[in-house]
This record gives sequence, structure tokens and C-alpha cells, in this order.
Amino acid sequence: MRRVELLEEIIKRRLLYWPSSEIYGGVGGFYDYGPLGVQLRRNIVEKWRRTFVLPFQDLIIEVETPIIMPEPVFKASGHLDHFTDYVVGCTKCGRKYRADHLVEEELAKRGLKISTEGLSAAELERLIAEHRIVCPNCGGPLGRVESFNLLFKTTIGPYSENAGYLRPETAQGIFVAFPRLAEYVGRRHPFGVAQIGRVARNEISPRGGLMRLREFTQMEIELFFDPQNPKCPYFAEVEGLEIPIVPEELVAKGQTEPLFLTAREVAARGYANEWMAFFMALAAKFLKELGVPLERQKFLGKLPHERAHYSAKSYDQMVLTERFGWVEVSGHAYRTDYDLSGHMRHSGREMYLERRLPAPKEVEVVRIYPNPNAIREKYGDRIGEVIKAIKENEAYVAKTFGEGRQEVTVGEYIVTRDMVFIKTEKRKTDLEKFIPHVVEPSFGLDRIMYAVLEHALAEEGGRVYLRLPADVAPINVCILPIVKRQDYVEIGRSLRRELATEGFLVWYDDEGTIGSRYAACDEIGVPLAVTIDERTPTDGTVTIRDRDTRKQVRIGLRDVAKFLAAVRKGVSFDEAAKALGAMPV
Amino acid sequence: MRRVELLEEIIKRRLLYWPSSEIYGGVGGFYDYGPLGVQLRRNIVEKWRRTFVLPFQDLIIEVETPIIMPEPVFKASGHLDHFTDYVVGCTKCGRKYRADHLVEEELAKRGLKISTEGLSAAELERLIAEHRIVCPNCGGPLGRVESFNLLFKTTIGPYSENAGYLRPETAQGIFVAFPRLAEYVGRRHPFGVAQIGRVARNEISPRGGLMRLREFTQMEIELFFDPQNPKCPYFAEVEGLEIPIVPEELVAKGQTEPLFLTAREVAARGYANEWMAFFMALAAKFLKELGVPLERQKFLGKLPHERAHYSAKSYDQMVLTERFGWVEVSGHAYRTDYDLSGHMRHSGREMYLERRLPAPKEVEVVRIYPNPNAIREKYGDRIGEVIKAIKENEAYVAKTFGEGRQEVTVGEYIVTRDMVFIKTEKRKTDLEKFIPHVVEPSFGLDRIMYAVLEHALAEEGGRVYLRLPADVAPINVCILPIVKRQDYVEIGRSLRRELATEGFLVWYDDEGTIGSRYAACDEIGVPLAVTIDERTPTDGTVTIRDRDTRKQVRIGLRDVAKFLAAVRKGVSFDEAAKALGAMPV
Repeated sequence: MRRVELLEEIIKRRLLYWPSSEIYGGVGGFYDYGPLGVQLRRNIVEKWRRTFVLPFQDLIIEVETPIIMPEPVFKASGHLDHFTDYVVGCTKCGRKYRADHLVEEELAKRGLKISTEGLSAAELERLIAEHRIVCPNCGGPLGRVESFNLLFKTTIGPYSENAGYLRPETAQGIFVAFPRLAEYVGRRHPFGVAQIGRVARNEISPRGGLMRLREFTQMEIELFFDPQNPKCPYFAEVEGLEIPIVPEELVAKGQTEPLFLTAREVAARGYANEWMAFFMALAAKFLKELGVPLERQKFLGKLPHERAHYSAKSYDQMVLTERFGWVEVSGHAYRTDYDLSGHMRHSGREMYLERRLPAPKEVEVVRIYPNPNAIREKYGDRIGEVIKAIKENEAYVAKTFGEGRQEVTVGEYIVTRDMVFIKTEKRKTDLEKFIPHVVEPSFGLDRIMYAVLEHALAEEGGRVYLRLPADVAPINVCILPIVKRQDYVEIGRSLRRELATEGFLVWYDDEGTIGSRYAACDEIGVPLAVTIDERTPTDGTVTIRDRDTRKQVRIGLRDVAKFLAAVRKGVSFDEAAKALGAMPV
Repeated sequence: MRRVELLEEIIKRRLLYWPSSEIYGGVGGFYDYGPLGVQLRRNIVEKWRRTFVLPFQDLIIEVETPIIMPEPVFKASGHLDHFTDYVVGCTKCGRKYRADHLVEEELAKRGLKISTEGLSAAELERLIAEHRIVCPNCGGPLGRVESFNLLFKTTIGPYSENAGYLRPETAQGIFVAFPRLAEYVGRRHPFGVAQIGRVARNEISPRGGLMRLREFTQMEIELFFDPQNPKCPYFAEVEGLEIPIVPEELVAKGQTEPLFLTAREVAARGYANEWMAFFMALAAKFLKELGVPLERQKFLGKLPHERAHYSAKSYDQMVLTERFGWVEVSGHAYRTDYDLSGHMRHSGREMYLERRLPAPKEVEVVRIYPNPNAIREKYGDRIGEVIKAIKENEAYVAKTFGEGRQEVTVGEYIVTRDMVFIKTEKRKTDLEKFIPHVVEPSFGLDRIMYAVLEHALAEEGGRVYLRLPADVAPINVCILPIVKRQDYVEIGRSLRRELATEGFLVWYDDEGTIGSRYAACDEIGVPLAVTIDERTPTDGTVTIRDRDTRKQVRIGLRDVAKFLAAVRKGVSFDEAAKALGAMPV
């Protein structure tokens, strides 16, 4: 655990992150990010966009929706009913625990290893009774196991009955906006919608630093496709990439070691459809480029009772950390039409795309014609809006009345059977409506950041440094006058300013020995260090040093920005040096 | 209002933003941003960082803290007591109104223009009674005017007594983390801390589109400085910049027209200190570069009763919009040591920096020595932590006991007088502790985005386009095969992919006439359009068109990325064309 302690020490001393509101004793599950943490996060987010969104921007668009959402959203999404954990309280000291964790931990202390995943409240109570588990704090007896909803609740506006909730996933903002987004893309498919933003889950007992937060940042894509055609047009680009996978059927047999299959094999063997395999292949590549080798990754199939309430198939992308063992950094779920159907049912708004039929065919369509008199009688002046709402939801209205019901809600209006005429007509069409299915890759930024830091930590001959990839390192360059001489300092400060104005993150230091300053830069993973020495004032050259190899070359001051830009873009130190005609030192 | 309608039409059709959760009837004060809106916002944020943070990164650092914060934070910050509006309800229909707005609007209908800013509940009730104002919805009588707190409240964890609130400003996350941040910068000063993030305010009756939201994005800086030395080391860089300002003393006389003063004059006349003038000058430049000319900006001094509870001096940066009149896009407040002192008082943690005295002097210091026996008696094993807390807050402990009190809270520990020995010692020092003062520039991203859109709208000879600056335009380039021919389409798609992978935002369109496609690109403010024509397949050249002048030049396919990068960086179309040896068309 020496490496873990080294890293913790760097995180603390260099203020990457720390518990929020600690002057008030802190509150579990919330962390602040300092200057280096913010920039590392920003760079990981940008890399995610460059991996998952920008190259596919003809198919994948991006949205930003609020964190607070009104109650009907989570009624429809199933979160009000299903997004719960079990809590159990001590009847003596009042302390509360997440029941499944408590049972697992208390039994583990006695050498019993069991999994509580998927157990009911009654089953947990039975285990507590059977093993005489008591409050670990005071030894008091535990009470009933109860369901605890993880949504943070609030009130919107001055009426206390208007409940709102903080979203537990960015996804719902996308589903709720689906009618707008579908129209925006012209009902073309497949199409995906990405969102990056904060979410909140009221965990019963958060712990493990960044591993289980109450507020964290997600990067998600909801990919909408025709279930009759789950083909990914970009699949050829990834089909040769490797995915370390433990398919559901092997998980069921107790296997934990992954198979190393290509994306093509994963899809061919039916372990995932093309879209899931596509995102899993990119996710493996993404983490690999962030410094987590494939050997320390696996995609673990989730058994039916382990999946979220909306998922028909799920893989968790796990990364092996030294401190926390295997941790989930992304989830890949096949959400089917669960969410869109739910919102359609609850809102009365249609959620569909259109597929083109091979040949036009004659279909019987049920058409709905408004009955203006009946509508006006109930809604008066708002008749126009009501008719518009009926038109927009024609198929849904037809279906509902077709089932024999006598009223239907469209938008904010209740439409009764007498307000419309229903006619069956024949018509030729080559378009067919359908509710798309959804594949969702969902990444947790905070956990990824931790995994990246841990994998970056390198220790070589007493030297400790973060081997962060150049495109995610929070600081791009250190500027170090070799000694604190007036002319060196002036050149150094002016270079700092020039690079800062160009948008680089720069660390300037002219105090102490050059060795200790190199060490300080290494420790926060700065890929390059520029040294101003005796030649700089006379010939305008500086040395530039590679963090990992400690190799140095000499280049002109005016080429420093180009060197940094090249390295940040992924060009190696040697190539960048060569391209700029740098001289060996 | 034709221009306003044109813009609304573009916003709606091109899905820049729309009311959130509208399938459930919507909820006031929340908006979703579509693909173009997200990218426009992102670019404005990046421009803000390039203006306010990156060039000054030796002084200004960046943090990211949670949206949910525990109750003690807002007790100390004054928000629980002072962050309120007056609400009045109809006793008949139950509808609720923001009392000051209702009074102003109802009186305005009768031709009476009054300002209710700073009025008390009793004064508002008197106006309601005097003018017999009734419920505008149903004509019913209004009830009592009551105070309504604008913080969104929630519960953290499974204990219902643990109240949490959604932050109404990002600032508090910075103040609460001050001890960590001060240590990080080595107690150097001045230093600033920036934060960009979502905040939430439970407005009674939000309205005006993006103007008054319940959830929005702020970009803030808290600048900490020594009140004995309010000098800004970067002031020389901005002192010649113009600030359209209506100082408090002129506001008091009823003046609304701004004086156009340089930052130097603003500081010299004492209208603001150097730090406030510095940020106001940058803010004026920022908005100007976003397309809002100085003539449509003003910094309006706030009278004492108009200021927020924490502010000793405030200017609102106002922008003149066609749709909403003058709207505030940033606030510049002199928060003094209000926040740090409040948090120090409530948390028992010291909040200080150190100034160097001109010469060391002998001072009497009150030193606090822990009394281990007394501490162990109460705290047992935690004695080490208690001693640490006492040491960290030595000055605060000394001050409290010096005032004759018998106990003091440090961190989570209550320290009684018997737990310490107090000694007065003489010692030489050239360091003096002080609580820094704070100047805060605070920007509202959503309002800025609207102001930018409105000012970008251009109408010339039937042509409508958004003259967005190239560095904030959401899409960088359109790619348009002149006709839909197989070879043109292939080149176009491959260019799209290449540019997309380079990180550009690309719009590709091969349907319809070239004129209608140019119009579509203009309407969303794409600065450049590349056309693939009959020469492209043979000589590898394309035409590239300037949105504003409609001028076209011809360049090689391989130079397109360079052209885009130059224009995005601020190079003019003509210069970019010249630098790349483009040929006139």
C-alpha cells in the first residue's frame, strides 16, 4: 500500500481534492476539487468528447438540461418506485446503516463471505436475526429493514406541493426532451444524445473517497436506434479493438476472469449488440489511453437481479485499483424502450422515430378528427391548443380510445371520447412509426479521475512522478530559471505570460534548487519543463525536458509554444524535438 | 420587435434552448439547451476563462465545489436570514406572487411608475391596501406579505434533520474552502479563486425566458486582497480601457446615463478600487468582444438599500436588449471580509493571510498551550486531534478567551477555559495576520448567451444571419457539395470526418439548393462555408466563403483545417486567405 499512501500524500499536499465543507466538520459524499483537480477533470472530459462525440458528430449531438426536475419525470422513469436501497437503524443509538452493506461487512468480520445483491428486505431481516447482527456502534438491537429512496427531494416555487428532485442520472433530461430532439434530427436514426453534468444520489453511507459520492459528474450518451436494425454505421472502425469481457453466462457460472475478444467477436457471439460493443470497445480504448492497460480492465456482465430497473442487459466497465480493488468506471446498459415508453404513458406525448419500409404499402390508419363544438364547450378559447395537442398525439389518442377507454390526457388537456371523431382510412405509405430502443454508455468522471491518478503514479529509483498522458495532465509546462537571476527571471516571467495568454497552463518557479523544482513538477505530472540558463539571454534558447525519460533538448524561445502544442496533441517528445530542429543537450 | 421575433423563431427552429420538462407541462424557470446552445455556452465559458483566468493564472486559480451544501454554510453566509423575497398570496384562488413585482406591475397598469426596491413587508402591504390591489388572476383579496427564502432545501442522508441547500452562488464553496486554498498559495496575496458552475434560486415567479431562471450557470471570481493594499498588479494592462459607469452618487441623483471613463479614472475618482475597476474594465471588453458595443453597456452603481446583504459597494453590468430592456449580465461586489468573518465566527476556523511588515517589530503575542490532562479527561483518545485544532486556531482561541468567554468551538470540539494555559510572550516578527477583503465579479452565463444572440442578429437586404464572433460560434464550418453528386459527396463526407476528428464542429449538408443551404448556415452563425464543386475532384481545391461579407476564395483541401483554426483564433478572413495563399474566386 506504499504507492497508495504516496498518492494520497500528493493528492493532499497538492490539493487535487478534499472533503467539502470541512470547516463545518464535513458531510459525507461531497468533495471539492482544487486547481489541479479541476484541470485534470476538464481534460478528461474533453478527451471523452474527442473519443465519443466529436468524431461521430453527424450522429451524436449534445444537450445540457437542468439538475432539478419535477416529480412526474421520476414517476415515469421508475426512480420514485425503484431507486432505493435498504436502510436499517439501531433502536438504541439511532445510527442508520445501508442494510446490505452492514450484513456483508458484519458477516465478513466472522469470515463469512456472502453477496446480498438482489436480496429483499425480509431476506436481509432474516440474515440479521439468524446471525444476531447488532449495531456496530453501540451494540444495540437493529430495527426493521426499510426501503430508502435515493433521490434528493426539494420543493419548486412557493407552493409546498410542487415536489422536485435532483436528477440521479443525466439521462432523464434527454428522454424527457426526446420529442424536440427527434424533430431536430428529422426523425433520422440511429442518433445519439450526449450529456455531461452533475447528478446527485442520496447515498445512505457514502465512503471510499471519490468512489461513492452523493454528488458527482456523469458523461452519458443515450443512443436511439431501430430495434429491427441494431447496426452501428461506425462499427468497422472499432471491430478489431479488444474488449476484456466476462459475459453474463460466465458470470452466472462464477467466472471472474475476462475473455479478451474483439468487438466483432463480442457482437458475433451475441454478448452485446453492435451499439453496445461499439461503445464498450471505445470505452476500453479511452481508459487505455488514459493510462489504464487492458489487463487492468474488465466488462462484467450483470445478472438479471443485479441490473438497474430499466436495463435488459448491462455490463459494468471495471478497473482494478490498488486502493479499492475493482471499481466500476462506466456502465453499459441496454435500456430498450423502457424510458421512452414510460414517459409516453405518463405524459401522453408520442415518442417515436420513423422507419422507411422497403416498398410503400397500403395500411389502415385510424385517423382522429377533432370535434370543435365539444372541445370548445369544455376548453373555450383554448380550443386551438387542444386541437394541436390532439394532432401531435394522434396515434396515441387513437390507441387509447381503440382500447375502449373514455378519456386520454394529451399534454395538459384531458380529451374525452366525445371530443373527437374516429375514422379508419386506407392509405399508402412507406413510413412506419416506432419507439426506438436505447443503448447507454454512462461514465463517472470522479472515479475515472481517481483511477487515472493511481495508474499514473510511477516510482523509479527514489523518484516519484505522475506519468499522466500529455493531453490530460493539468499543467502543460513548468518554467524554471536555473537560478534566480534578474535577467533569467524576466525572461521566465515573460514566457509564462505569453504561454498563459495562448491558453496553456503554466507552472513558474524560481525558488530553491533546480532538482527540487523538477521533482515538484514531476509529482504533479507536468510533461515538460523549460529551463532558462546562461545561454538564454545571449542566444535566446532554452532547454526543454521530458518528464518520463528526463531527456533534454535545446530549442529557441519562439518554438516553445509549438513544442507544447505538439506534445499536448499526442506527438512524442522525440518527434516534436525533431520537427522543430531541436539540438541535443 | 420584428428582430426579436426573428430571433425567437431561429432559437425555436434550431433548438438553441426550450423550456425543460415540457412534455409534463413544463415548470417555470428551467431551460434545456440543444446542440447549438451547448456549444455556444461552452465557447462563451472558454472565452471567459481566456479573459479572466488564464492570462492571470499566477494569481487566479480555479476550483470546483458541490452544488449541495450543508446548513451551517448558509447560516454563516447570511443566506438563511437574508436571501429572501416577499411573497403575497390570493386568499381566494391561492395563487402566489412576488409582492414587489406585483405592486410595481399593477401600479404600472394604472400609469404609476414606482420602485419597490428595498421596501419592507409592511410598506408593501400599505401600498396594496392604499391602491386596493387585488389578485390579477381572480380579483380576490390578497393576504399578508410574507418573507420567502429563495434557497432550495433538501435533506442529506437518511436523517431528516440534516438539512442541505442548493448553493445560490458558487462563491460560498470558495469561502468555505478558504483555509485550504490560502495554504495552497502559501498565504501569498493578492490571489483569486474562480469557479464556473450551476447554482439554483427558488424564484417565486420566474419569467422572461433566460432572464430569471431557477437554475443557471455562474462564472465567478473571489479576489482576496489586503485591505491596506488594494493594488492590482495587472492594473497597467487595463487602465486605458473604457468603462461606461453610473457611479452611486449619480444614481442617487436619478442619473441613468453613464459616464465613459477609463479604468484609471474610475479608480482615481474613487468610484471603485483598483481590483473592482480591473474586473469591470475586463468585463466591458469581454462583452464588447462578444458583440455588445460599449454604447449598449453600463455599470450601474447600487444604492445601499439595493445591494445584497454582503456588499459594501456594488455595480451591475447592464446590457441593453431589445426584448427585455436593460438586463444585468454581471455583478461586481465589494464583499469586504463579510463572508470570511462570518465563516470564521461560525466554524471556529481561522481565515487569514499574512502581510509582511516593513521592519520586524516586537509584539506581545498571546500564546495558547494545551493542558493535556484536562483535554484527555473530556476527549480521551481524541486528544491529539483536539490539540491540533487548538494549534490551528490559536489566535481565535486567544481572542475568544481574551474576551472573557469560558468556551470556544474549534472544528468539531468545544474547548473550555481549563483545557488551555494562556501566556503572554514578547517576540520579534515581520509577519502580521489579517482577514483579506474580497472583490467579486460574478457573471450569469445564460443571460450573456441571450444578449450575445440578440446582438449577433443581422438583417441585410432580406438576408438574416447571426454575426457571432468566430471564437464563440457553435459551428465552425459548413461543408456543402454544390450538387449531390457521388464524388462530391464522398469528398465532403471525408472532409467532415477529418475536421470533426480534429475537434472542429462541422455542419454537413448536401440537400437542396446551395442558396438555401448558405442561408441555413448563416442563420446559425457559421463563420465559414466550404463548397465542393467541379474543380475539387480534379485539382483538390474548394471555395471557402465568409459569412459576413459573402466573399469567397479558393484554397486547397489540405489547408481547410488551418484556415478554420486561424479564423477561430481571431485572424480575419482576408488575413487567413492571404497567409494560406488563397486565390480570389
